[in-house]
Amino acid sequence: MRTHTHSLRVRYGETDQMGLVYHANYLLYFETGRTELMRAAGLAYRELEERGVYLVVTETACRHRAPARYDEELRIVTSVDRLGKATVRFRYEILGPSGTLLAEGHTELASVDRAKNPVRLPADVTTRLGKSAPPP
Amino acid sequence: MRTHTHSLRVRYGETDQMGLVYHANYLLYFETGRTELMRAAGLAYRELEERGVYLVVTETACRHRAPARYDEELRIVTSVDRLGKATVRFRYEILGPSGTLLAEGHTELASVDRAKNPVRLPADVTTRLGKSAPPP
Amino acid sequence: MRTHTHSLRVRYGETDQMGLVYHANYLLYFETGRTELMRAAGLAYRELEERGVYLVVTETACRHRAPARYDEELRIVTSVDRLGKATVRFRYEILGPSGTLLAEGHTELASVDRAKNPVRLPADVTTRLGKSAPPP
Amino acid sequence: MRTHTHSLRVRYGETDQMGLVYHANYLLYFETGRTELMRAAGLAYRELEERGVYLVVTETACRHRAPARYDEELRIVTSVDRLGKATVRFRYEILGPSGTLLAEGHTELASVDRAKNPVRLPADVTTRLGKSAPPP
Repeated sequence: MRTHTHSLRVRYGETDQMGLVYHANYLLYFETGRTELMRAAGLAYRELEERGVYLVVTETACRHRAPARYDEELRIVTSVDRLGKATVRFRYEILGPSGTLLAEGHTELASVDRAKNPVRLPADVTTRLGKSAPPP
Repeated sequence: MRTHTHSLRVRYGETDQMGLVYHANYLLYFETGRTELMRAAGLAYRELEERGVYLVVTETACRHRAPARYDEELRIVTSVDRLGKATVRFRYEILGPSGTLLAEGHTELASVDRAKNPVRLPADVTTRLGKSAPPP
Repeated sequence: MRTHTHSLRVRYGETDQMGLVYHANYLLYFETGRTELMRAAGLAYRELEERGVYLVVTETACRHRAPARYDEELRIVTSVDRLGKATVRFRYEILGPSGTLLAEGHTELASVDRAKNPVRLPADVTTRLGKSAPPP
Repeated sequence: MRTHTHSLRVRYGETDQMGLVYHANYLLYFETGRTELMRAAGLAYRELEERGVYLVVTETACRHRAPARYDEELRIVTSVDRLGKATVRFRYEILGPSGTLLAEGHTELASVDRAKNPVRLPADVTTRLGKSAPPP
């Protein structure tokens, strides 16, 4: 299924007094990863919400292998791991400047409507997320 | 006008690699200060939103006098500084464990409706915010 | 092993445009939970760092059962789940105002020295975290 | 003096339940603005810290003119506003996708050494920040 790589730079405010990136911020990096994967698939998440479909995070997991530091340019490799009728699971790897694996994890999201009731993922979403990205 | 003191403890995730509280987090401490002042005045901000009145932040300012550190218990002294027809200005002082002034600042908020158009502050809000707190 | 309950109130800045608490903030609630468990066990984490022992987060996981909302007072029930020679695993349950389970998860932490090399947990830490809390 | 423009995209976790960017996050956007201005001037802030010079934020101010929203690509126009012997003041304008001014503000920073004592800004820093950027 679809995979996407996005780069971002660590902000000062994302570090903590240990001199490393505070662990909760990896979930924000994951968010950026899946947002950009979806955009690359022609599916801006913002437009999904405008159509009345919301993806709520129901599960997160992250293993930290090595620390990320201030000002480093990180690469987030995001892939669609599992596509259900009303759920999607993304996998993430965060790589440091020299390509070292810093963290890996996944998030599970469920599609709901404005009233927060479960709804099926629209067909075009499933199709676009399911397809592999075309060779670059 | 009304003044209120609230205490909170600095979280690890609120520090940065300088070993001090990251400056943007003071605005979250200010938020807690005014929320608790309003609650003490009988005005839970949450209920204000349920009535369709939102307070949007239009201006913030903060001067940092001395650093706050992890796990310190800070005191936030909040007061209503100016009450307009559709605006309210809060002043804040943040005090460290020994009473030292760490930071001071203000925020200006404007009252808007659900569509984000300016509206007058409800009369009971003005009354409650304008009154001094009763002696404890 | 030791269990501890701590209450905190959701800040406005912790919500997102879905009108719910943004998922990454649960990890900050977990942090508060284990910090307060440790303090109740006579082990301020700040003092541990002053002794040159740091606990770095190596793994996080969270399942979201129901949403938490602005201004709600949440209860975080934290327990020591597993104690190794140089690792400790905490389990968390986050309960809403009416006692509903909103989220549950765990974090794994490893003890390292100032140079970020693994070190054994000091004996007093293991003892204090391992013991059940005395009946209140 | 030097001016620099940097673009960034609003994250979901940076919004709040009003459906807009939470005000404290503008200070993180300001941080990114001055970091990239410094990098463009050949002065990675990270390297400044490695040389033992830290810039601590002593004052922040922000006026909000119009709201920023999720997924918008914002432009941050940063300029060096005032250069003292041991202080530097940056000015910021945040522009929305259509060029509208969303917010403007400034931050004042003081240079300190590792022990957090005031020190003069190194000569090369003053020179680089003081010069206008070459025409592109």
